[in-house]
Formats: sequence, structure tokens, C-alpha cells
Amino acid sequence: MSTKTIGIIMNGVTGRMGYRQHLVRSIVALRDEGGVLLSDGSRVAIEPLLVGRDEERLRRIADRHGIDLVSTDLDAALADDRWSIYFDAQITSARVAAITRAIAAGKHVYTEKPTAESHADALDLARRADDAGIVNGVVHDKLYLPGLVRLRELIASGFFGRILSVRGEFGYWVFEGDWRHAQRPSWNYRAEDGGGIVVDMFPHWNYVIEHLFGRIEAVYTRAVTHIPSRVDESGVRYDATADDAAYAIIEVEGGVIVQLNSSWDVRVDRGELVEFQVDGTLGSAVVGLFGAKIQPRDGTPTPTWNPDLPDAHDYAADWLAVPTVPPGTEPVNGFRAQWEEFIRDVLAGRPHAYDFASGARGLLLAERALESSGTGRRLALVGGEGA
Amino acid sequence: MSTKTIGIIMNGVTGRMGYRQHLVRSIVALRDEGGVLLSDGSRVAIEPLLVGRDEERLRRIADRHGIDLVSTDLDAALADDRWSIYFDAQITSARVAAITRAIAAGKHVYTEKPTAESHADALDLARRADDAGIVNGVVHDKLYLPGLVRLRELIASGFFGRILSVRGEFGYWVFEGDWRHAQRPSWNYRAEDGGGIVVDMFPHWNYVIEHLFGRIEAVYTRAVTHIPSRVDESGVRYDATADDAAYAIIEVEGGVIVQLNSSWDVRVDRGELVEFQVDGTLGSAVVGLFGAKIQPRDGTPTPTWNPDLPDAHDYAADWLAVPTVPPGTEPVNGFRAQWEEFIRDVLAGRPHAYDFASGARGLLLAERALESSGTGRRLALVGGEGA
Amino acid sequence: MSTKTIGIIMNGVTGRMGYRQHLVRSIVALRDEGGVLLSDGSRVAIEPLLVGRDEERLRRIADRHGIDLVSTDLDAALADDRWSIYFDAQITSARVAAITRAIAAGKHVYTEKPTAESHADALDLARRADDAGIVNGVVHDKLYLPGLVRLRELIASGFFGRILSVRGEFGYWVFEGDWRHAQRPSWNYRAEDGGGIVVDMFPHWNYVIEHLFGRIEAVYTRAVTHIPSRVDESGVRYDATADDAAYAIIEVEGGVIVQLNSSWDVRVDRGELVEFQVDGTLGSAVVGLFGAKIQPRDGTPTPTWNPDLPDAHDYAADWLAVPTVPPGTEPVNGFRAQWEEFIRDVLAGRPHAYDFASGARGLLLAERALESSGTGRRLALVGGEGA
Amino acid sequence: MSTKTIGIIMNGVTGRMGYRQHLVRSIVALRDEGGVLLSDGSRVAIEPLLVGRDEERLRRIADRHGIDLVSTDLDAALADDRWSIYFDAQITSARVAAITRAIAAGKHVYTEKPTAESHADALDLARRADDAGIVNGVVHDKLYLPGLVRLRELIASGFFGRILSVRGEFGYWVFEGDWRHAQRPSWNYRAEDGGGIVVDMFPHWNYVIEHLFGRIEAVYTRAVTHIPSRVDESGVRYDATADDAAYAIIEVEGGVIVQLNSSWDVRVDRGELVEFQVDGTLGSAVVGLFGAKIQPRDGTPTPTWNPDLPDAHDYAADWLAVPTVPPGTEPVNGFRAQWEEFIRDVLAGRPHAYDFASGARGLLLAERALESSGTGRRLALVGGEGA
Repeated sequence: MSTKTIGIIMNGVTGRMGYRQHLVRSIVALRDEGGVLLSDGSRVAIEPLLVGRDEERLRRIADRHGIDLVSTDLDAALADDRWSIYFDAQITSARVAAITRAIAAGKHVYTEKPTAESHADALDLARRADDAGIVNGVVHDKLYLPGLVRLRELIASGFFGRILSVRGEFGYWVFEGDWRHAQRPSWNYRAEDGGGIVVDMFPHWNYVIEHLFGRIEAVYTRAVTHIPSRVDESGVRYDATADDAAYAIIEVEGGVIVQLNSSWDVRVDRGELVEFQVDGTLGSAVVGLFGAKIQPRDGTPTPTWNPDLPDAHDYAADWLAVPTVPPGTEPVNGFRAQWEEFIRDVLAGRPHAYDFASGARGLLLAERALESSGTGRRLALVGGEGA
Repeated sequence: MSTKTIGIIMNGVTGRMGYRQHLVRSIVALRDEGGVLLSDGSRVAIEPLLVGRDEERLRRIADRHGIDLVSTDLDAALADDRWSIYFDAQITSARVAAITRAIAAGKHVYTEKPTAESHADALDLARRADDAGIVNGVVHDKLYLPGLVRLRELIASGFFGRILSVRGEFGYWVFEGDWRHAQRPSWNYRAEDGGGIVVDMFPHWNYVIEHLFGRIEAVYTRAVTHIPSRVDESGVRYDATADDAAYAIIEVEGGVIVQLNSSWDVRVDRGELVEFQVDGTLGSAVVGLFGAKIQPRDGTPTPTWNPDLPDAHDYAADWLAVPTVPPGTEPVNGFRAQWEEFIRDVLAGRPHAYDFASGARGLLLAERALESSGTGRRLALVGGEGA
Repeated sequence: MSTKTIGIIMNGVTGRMGYRQHLVRSIVALRDEGGVLLSDGSRVAIEPLLVGRDEERLRRIADRHGIDLVSTDLDAALADDRWSIYFDAQITSARVAAITRAIAAGKHVYTEKPTAESHADALDLARRADDAGIVNGVVHDKLYLPGLVRLRELIASGFFGRILSVRGEFGYWVFEGDWRHAQRPSWNYRAEDGGGIVVDMFPHWNYVIEHLFGRIEAVYTRAVTHIPSRVDESGVRYDATADDAAYAIIEVEGGVIVQLNSSWDVRVDRGELVEFQVDGTLGSAVVGLFGAKIQPRDGTPTPTWNPDLPDAHDYAADWLAVPTVPPGTEPVNGFRAQWEEFIRDVLAGRPHAYDFASGARGLLLAERALESSGTGRRLALVGGEGA
Repeated sequence: MSTKTIGIIMNGVTGRMGYRQHLVRSIVALRDEGGVLLSDGSRVAIEPLLVGRDEERLRRIADRHGIDLVSTDLDAALADDRWSIYFDAQITSARVAAITRAIAAGKHVYTEKPTAESHADALDLARRADDAGIVNGVVHDKLYLPGLVRLRELIASGFFGRILSVRGEFGYWVFEGDWRHAQRPSWNYRAEDGGGIVVDMFPHWNYVIEHLFGRIEAVYTRAVTHIPSRVDESGVRYDATADDAAYAIIEVEGGVIVQLNSSWDVRVDRGELVEFQVDGTLGSAVVGLFGAKIQPRDGTPTPTWNPDLPDAHDYAADWLAVPTVPPGTEPVNGFRAQWEEFIRDVLAGRPHAYDFASGARGLLLAERALESSGTGRRLALVGGEGA
């Protein structure tokens, strides 16, 4: 029987992502199984408190999932010792203030990303959290997707030998909105509304690269607006002022080069919307978020470059598809898996792997990338405040 | 019957490339068909003079192909009015001096690439040729390969609408030479012997980009040596000092961005060793040197980015393979095709499309790319001496 | 220009194997290319002397291939300093005597296998050769076949990690000769005529195992006669007294276990008539004499053993076929390749890798295997006279 | 309507295997159909009594399946005449004592395997059962799987002619537990905890061989520990002291040779995790637990062994897949099928085919195999106490 219970303040889970991924699929699912399983075989029970501005809405959600407590008074909740974790899924602009209060109240803090609207603010928050000695974590859910889990396993097994380079490609065609509706909201394409593919995707690229290949040392990016005029949700044409494609060359500690192509203006010639090719001395892999294939060096062909003759070799046949999820099983939900790790870290009093500092470096990468695009200079990331 | 004859001095065609591609498959083949066909239906006959240092060897080649004249005296040949075109297939270090004399003698000049060992020398040669008013041309054979011919046609037809970006990938795994023999000579991997993937490939990339998409305005490149130690032809380990991979972001007039990945350290996940993906507002294409496939915007899917769900869409099925060569026919020989164009240009007294200046810009791109890799700065190519 | 010439006495090349593989495809072919290429780029010319009993037949063969000299006097040839290598392709019973004389005459000796009719004689010959300090070699042609060359390369590259075990299967159905003609000669099935699958195949298995995986330390074999009555070339029924199948478990230095199934009474459920599966900590391979496929540990599935449920996993899809010969090229002729190595070893005055001692160990394996079958005991090979 | 009822004491069916296979799918399923169908078309009803130590748990199971009686008093049950069959699915260490009491009480006994922890104890139990004249049986479920049922049919039909040899291969790669979790429990790899592939699998091999091909006369086995260090369920490295691979050559009455490869350290190049190839004078078959394919002698190719030429013959095409289960039907459950036979044998008062003596011989094979591995001697099984 579980005897311990951990209380979690959940702020902002009335939004779509907060509600589905964090509340329903993670916290409620874990609670219904009797809590989080610990390494000694025991379980710690979970009790959530829903916090927000609209009490009636909170109440409705709480009732639907058998949750007892809701509150519109965050400060009272933070002052209450029953709750040891504060979770934040509010809009980004409200995050720094709330988390700062939670840290001051001595809560451990887990939060959606980004942690702040600028790298400076995010770094400041990371320092406060460290100074307070609390366990702090930021959602890094993509790392838990089966393709990237398999990639981590390939790296751990020594499959690649020394990793030399990574080629990442992300993107698809986002329609301009005139003859076919755009499949993304128009604010994504307006810089003045916080749009742009660099701020949207580079924080993700940072944590994928950092936690699989190593810390990013330098970046050069060319961010451009290929489609300068689009049509919005109401059928009104508007100026697309934000970058809609970004071409980056990233240098990682140990000499790994990452070439990253992020674009809403490409047509997809890949297996998935995002794919990474990793080349190492002993083997290569191409992984998406769900699929993976490998080519060991002993299966590598020996082509010769003769551009005057058609090359009949079937290069696709040199790759071996590998399963990313055991047959007959479901992939784990990445949000829930990280929740379990965070709660175990809190109980063990140890740092969480994906902390505020990692989140801050994601913002730093986006800022440096845009700066390098403007100045035409490769910019360092480490050695400075992002380290 | 043809009434006109054009005399061509062929210098250095005892080498493999000069002999097979230029002499046998181009000049001898054209001569045997009665000469070059002109737009008025008439033909101009061809008479070659083989020039070199080893008279016996020249004689043997000439006899084998029914050629009357050989000579070891280049100056006498240049002074002789029977010959109006000078062609150079010597080693690069001998090229500038010989072409300079040919220009001084008033000959039209066609030459293998590169025209010189540095951009400065190549540019100087281009200016001399322009000042002398002669027709001048450099071999740009890749542009005549069926995949790139098809790409030119796609561009000319308006298929792409406005072209936004190009992603080029070139490369394959060149074995290190220890447990499996390397399939390229070891000097390619020694900077001190003129090796390196940038000097090897970037002049090609320049003419492909320039003549398909537009003049290159700026370049940022990261050139690296991923494999610092290799084993040579005799089984001896050596330091690989030259760049074996180069990651480039190139800006082309009109705002087209070209992202280029050139590497001897990748395993091939493409249809051919080199492929270009071109994305435009109305459609996209992926072309190799021999194959091509397209996706018009009306056949473009509307994916949504939901990284938490496997994406069952078959993106490969959205592309339509298109033939690059009429069924049942052979691809044209690019060397011969360019020879025909050059001879017609000489007869018409008009400039050849792929002139010394274009050749010089290829060297400029390689030099600027290496400089940008060292300094970490995006460098302009136009507006300066390369224009 | 080659200035050196090496003279080779060829004894017994009027037989099928000696004539085609050794004389025509090896020695005559090498002679016609100007001799054997050495590491310094020079060539050593080859002059053969054909020795045998039937002068007219020797003369006919010599004339057909432009060979000047033939002789029926072996002793005179051995006494002549023009000849530095003696090659023997006679019937086995004549071999020991002739090679003993060649060793006494100071010739380097290369010979078809087996070197003798018993391990004791073969070992004695090996000791004489070593005492005389001559370069000595035995034909080990299978090691030069593309599948086994690829296997050697896989081992050298570290693909397998630590090799654990090898499973070899050789065999096919040899018809009994009654309702369908047997495809092998009847003496193969009579012990009194030197037949039996152990004496036929185990010398091959010894050199394949020894030169790929390590020296054989111990063997247990069960040799049986599954089909005790067959019908010979004349349609006459005879007693098949020799073993027609042999089941062996072989222990190799370093702990590798080799399980070998050799049989003329099996129906083939493999890609080739002989295949080896090699399992190592990092990967496995299945190779034949010409084909190969691999499975790295990162591509290894995770089956669970549930015999009560059909298993839908496609195990064939977990293997990656790898080329054994570069596309567009012919496999090298193994006989010729070993001739070149032997001649280079003679010129360099260094031992040949596949020497008389290796050949003697092949006979030892066959003898020990048969003894273990009779006594029911695992027998050691090393530490004794075969080492 | 059935007029007879047979009472069965079921001891130990709270465990997974006992519960699912024996209680639910066999006894409860048969009871719900009205009992076991006899050859005269009548049915005998079934009444089970659940025996165990935890009454509450027994009650829960009984209620779930509409069973009236449970008991924690085995002796009382054995003394009660309502029950004529005793079934044992307890842990092995408790089995001998319980069965001994059941025999003494005059019950017919059916039991999970192994019947004891040593061959001596198992043989003793078999003798007691025979002396008491009771019907006795041991679970031999694999013999009822569709592939082996089909193999029995092929044998019965005379398809093979005289069977010459069997090649059995079982195994797959069990991960070491470091970079990927092991898919089997760690005790399997510790000799001190009863692990080892010989004790796990050889009792199965014994009954498969004995009941399909004949009694085993002799065995030679080499059992080894290829992977001496593994990582357990808690991530702790441990010494793997038990054999993880066993190479066996088994001699069966009538001269059949069985070569058996059992390994947790191989990668699978077969259709199923276990496969048997059977070669006979008139035909061959390859069967797994679920699939089968055959090659009659009239469909056998006539290959010639020429290792110097690639062999283009498609050997896979010489085999004909044969169905093992009538199309559209489910395979029978082997556990239930054997229960039906055992009950019919009890009612008919005749011996069960798979009796205690057969079970004892399975343990004997495992013990002799390990002994032969240590001593290096082929050991007899028949003529001694195992017969």
C-alpha cells in the first residue's frame, strides 16, 4: 500500500495542451494507477490542485476527473504545505511572474516551455531556481518520442563509433491561404505577434541536439521570409513579416556539425515531417519521431563518382529498418514519462535532467540564430551566460 | 555537302579525359558525321590538329582515328591561319601560359576547367579574352546531363512559379583505407597536395547554380576534416589535412537560398550521389544527374504537425517520376553537345554562354567559401571582382 | 621494364585442375600481362617449365600457350638453377616423393592439397621444408572466394565484436544412382578407395576456420553412412562403406564454438551449398562462398519465446544483404591470387601464410574427427604434433 | 446427456500457467461444453476441486468460473472418492511429495513438468506410479502445436521414407541488459539459481525427439557460457554462470542423427525461433511450431559442387509450403488436447502416451548432456536406468 502522497498545483491546465497531455494523460492517469512507481516497488500517491482564473471552468474539469480541489488564489496555494510541486501551463507572458513566486515559496517547479520570453529572463529564472535549491524542470517531450529514444539507444550502444555530423530536416508546405486554407494560424507569420520559425522550433532543436549529441558551441543561421504575403483566417491578405524558413549550421562540442533545414515552404521528400541523419565512423542512421533505419559501415557500399554514367545502385536497399517500439505495444506518452521522472527526482532530492538552464539555452539558440542571420557572423553560445 | 571547314588545335588530348570525351566522342564523332549541323541545315566540316610533347604518341592516336596532322610546336600552330580554335586539355598548371599565347594569336579558345590555379589568374585570363574580343568557353559538362537538362526545362516552363530555395546534397562514404581500400586517391585528402572537397566540388556548384538559378551573391561555409587520419594506396597511415566535408548556405540573386551539403563522410539516403531539391511557389522537384521527380502545388498534401502521433501519410507517393531522356533514346553526350554549341558560337561570332568569366567565378566561390569557414563570416561575391 | 625472371617447374598440369586453374588462368595469364606486379611497381617475368611423363601431351599443351620448354626428367629440372619454384599437381600418392626431392634440391615449393596421404607424412614434409628454409605453400583457394574475403573484412573491421560461435552447413542431396544418376563418382562412397566426406571436406574446414577464427583446439565428430547401398557409374549396386555425413562440434582458441554439418544426404534450405553463420557480441553475418548478409546488434529484434502463439515477426527482414564484389567487376580468381602472393613471398624471402604446416593440420583435423567418431571422445589438436 | 462425471483435484492453479492454460482454457472450457467427448459419442462431465494454500484467492477464482468447491486440505481431498484424478501445477520443489501422496491414495496423476528436480527422483516417481498401476501423465504440450502435429502426420504418411537425420535450431538473441533491457529474467543465467539453457530446453527436446523419431540412445553436448557478464532487472551487473548455448549431437534408435543448436546468443536466420529440418530417403521437411514446408525427392535439384562459380540456383524455390492448420480454423490448444486424451485414457484404464517415465527421460537427457560436456565423452542413455 502507498503511504506517501505528493501534492501538485496545476496552473493553467484549462488550455488544450495543459488539459490533455498534462492533466488527463499524465497526472490523472498516474493517480488512477495508484501513483508513481518508485524503484523500491512502492508507489507515491498524487493529489492535484487545479488553479486558474475561471472557477466554474476549473470546477467542471475537476468534477469530470474526480479531483477534489480547485482554487483561484495562487498565493494561498503556494503558502499551503500540502503542495510541494508547482506546475505552470499558462501563456508564456504570465510565466516568469508566477514561477518566481513559486520559487520564493520553496516549491519545486515543473513548467511548459518556453520558460520566459527572452533568454535573459529565462537565465535569470534558472539562477533563482538554483539559488533556492529547488528541483526544476521544463517539458522536453520530444526526447521521449520513440524515434529519438531509439536514437539515444543507438548512441549508447556505440553503433555510430565517433559521430561526425547530423543533418536535420523539418518542414512542409504551409499553404498561403488564398486558394487553399492555411493549416497554421496567421500569427505564426507575423513577427510583431511573436511568429517566426526560429523562435518556434530552435528551442526544440537545442534540447534535441544538446541531450543527444552535446552542448552547442556556435551557430550560423540564415532566416528568411520566402512568402511575404499570405491570407489570414478571415480571408484577408496580410504582410508575412516573420521568418518562414531558417537554414542553420550548428557546431557541437566534440566537433559534430549539425546542418538544420527548417521550413514552412518545402514539399516533403522524406519519411516523416522531421528526420535526422546521423553519420558516424562505424555507422549511420536516419530517424524520425517514430521510425528509424540504420546502415553499419560493413553494409556501406563503395560507390565511385562518375557523373557521366547513370548509377544503377539501389541506395535504399543499403538501409535496415529497425523497430522503435516493441511489436504489439504502444509507444509511451512522452509527457507522462517526463512527469514520472520529475516526481521521482523531487522525491529523491536530485536535479532533473531537463532543467531551467537547458530551457534557457533553447531561447539563447533562437536569439543567437536570428542575430547571426542579421550580422552574417557565426556566433558562439558557450563560454558565455548560456553555459 | 559542307563547303566550310573549321580547324581546331587540340592540345593535351593524350590524357584520359581529353582523349575519350573531347577527341573521340566529340571531335572525331562530329567529323565522321560530316561536321557540325548549323541552323540553316548546312554543316561545317572539322579538321583537328593534335598538339603535344610526344610526337610518337600523337602519331599513334592520329593514325587510329584517321587524323592527318600532329605537331609538337604549339607556336607554329598558333601562327597558322588554318586553325581558328585552340582547345586546351593540359594539366592545370600549364594552362594559363598556353591560353595566353592563343589569345595573343587571335584564336578562339575552348578549355577544360579550371582555367587557372587561382581566381586572380582566372579573372585575368577572362579579361584578356574579353579585351581580345575572342569567343571563349570553359567545359561545363554537368549542365548537359539529363537530370539537369530536365531541371532547366522545368524552370523554363514556369513549373516552379517563383523559386524559393534549393537543397543540394552530394556525397558518399569514402573508406578510410584501413580495413577496406579507399575508393579515391589519397592526395584528395591532403591540403598540401591540392586536396579538399571545396576546391574539388565548389566550382561545379557555382556553374550549376549560376546557370540554373542566378548569380551567387554571398556564401557562408563550414569546411571541416571529419576523418583526420587515413591510410594511403601503399597501406601507410597519413594525416588527412584537407577538408572532407563542407556545409554551405549560399544566397542567389532574387532571394533564392541554396543549402549545400558536400561530404565524403556520409552514407547515401538518396536516389543518386548528388540530388537537388528545388521548391517554388507552384511546385517542387527533386533531380539528380539522371533522374527527376516533381510535385505540383495541386498535388501537395496538407500535413499538420502533431509530433505526438505517428504520421501514416506516404510522402513518397506524392511525387511523380518524370523521364529525363525520351524513352528508347540514349542521353546525349554532354561534352559533344557543348562542343557543337561552342563551334556554332564561333561561326556566329557571338559569346559562348559558359565563358572564362563563369569559370573564374567558380574559383572565386571556392576561395570565398574557405575564407568564410575560417573567419566565420558570410562573404559577398558580387559587386567585386568576380562579377 | 621488367628485368627479373622467375622460373617455375610445373609438374602434373596435364590434369583438369592443374591445367585450367594453375597453368592457364594463373601462370599463363600472369606471364601474358608481363609477370607479377610487385609493391615497388616493377614486374617479375615468369617462365614455366612443364614436367610430366607423356612428352607428346606436354608438347601439345606448351605449343597451345606459347611455352618453350617441357621435360620428362624431373631430376634434371630440379638440378637446373634456372628454376627456383617447384609446383606439384600430381596425384596425391606421388606427391611426397617428388616434393622431398624438390626440397633437397633447394627449390621453393608450392603444391596442390593434400600434401600427403596421412597427417604423419604431411607433418614430416612440413618439417623438412622448414629445416631447409625454403618458402612453402599449399593451395588454400577457398579463402580467396568473395564471400570468405568479405567475411575476413567483416572480422577485420570489428563488426562482430567478440565472436562467439560459427554454424557451418555444407551439403546437398547426392542421388543414390538408381532412379536418377548420382552426380558424384562412386569412389567417394567407398572407404577402401579413399572416399568419405570427412577426408574430402575437413581439410578445407580446417583452413577456413584457422585462418578466419583461430587455431582448432579440439573436435568431436559423428561420422555416419546414412545410405549404405548405392548404384555406380555402370548401373551396378555397391556397398557404400565411407561416411556420407559428418556432424562436428569444434572448439577454437579463444572459446569460439563451431558447429559443422557436412552431408551428401540433405536437401538444401540455404542460399548456397555452403553457408556459415557467425554470431558475435556486436553483430552477426551469414556468408556463403559468394553472398553475404549482416545483422548489427542495433538491428537485432527482441523476440519473446511464447510457443503457444504464432510469431508474425519477419526475421528475414532483419538482415541486410551486402555486396561481396564491387558492382560491375568480376570476382578475382582465387588460384591466381594465391599464386601472386606465393611468388611475391618467394621474392621477398618471407614465409607464405598458407604453408605446409597449415596443410598438415588439415589432415590432422580429418584424422582426429574420424577417431573421435569411433571412440566417442572429444580430442585435442593443439599442444601435440599438429601445432 | 452425460451420465458420468469425473472429479479432478487441481493443485496450484493460482499461478499464471496453471490458471490460464489448465484451468480456464482446458478444464473450464471442457466443462462448459458438457465434458469430454468419448469415442462412443457420449460425454463425461467434469467437476474440478481447486486446492491451494490461500483460501480467499481460491474462492475468488472459483467464483469467477462457477466452480463450487475449493479446499486448503490436500489430504482430505485425496481421501475423498469423488476425485479420481490429481493434477499438480505447483512449484517443482513441492511436486514429488504431493504426487507421492496422490499415488498412495490411488489417484490417477497428471502433472506439469518437470516431475522432479533430478532424474533420480523423477525415475523413482515413475516406478511408484507404475507399481501402483495408476494412469500417469506429464504435460508434453509442444507435441500438440500445429507444426509438430503436421510433422507427425508427414512421418505417419511415409513421406520421408527412411529418416536419416534431423537438424534442430532453437534460439534468439537475449540482450545483455546494459544498453537494452534483457527480455528474460536474470536467474536463467545463474547456475546457482537453477538457470541454464540445457536444463531449460533439453527436457522438451527429449520428448519431441522420442515421440516423433524414437528413443534417444546417446548424446554428446558442448554447453558453454558465451556471455559471462550480464546486467539484471535492477541495472546491476552480475556473473552469468549458467550455460547460455548448447551444441548437441544426439543418436536415436534406428540410426537417426539429431544435431541440435540451442542458444540465447544467436541472431535468427530462420522462419521461426525453433525449426527442425528432417531429411529422409524420399523427402525432407522444415517445420517450426506453426509452419511447415516440404521437398519430395522428385522435386530435389541435382546441384554440382563447383566452389569457383557463383551458383544461381534458387534453392528456396525448391520447397513447397504446406498448411499446418485447416484454412479458416484456429489451431487447437495443446494443453486442452492433452487433457482430453488423459481423461479418455483414465476412463479406458489404459496408459497415457506421455507418462512419468517419458518425463524422467527428459531430465536424464539434460543431466547426461551436461555430464558429456564436462567429460568430453558421448554418453549412452538407454540400457540404463532411463529406459
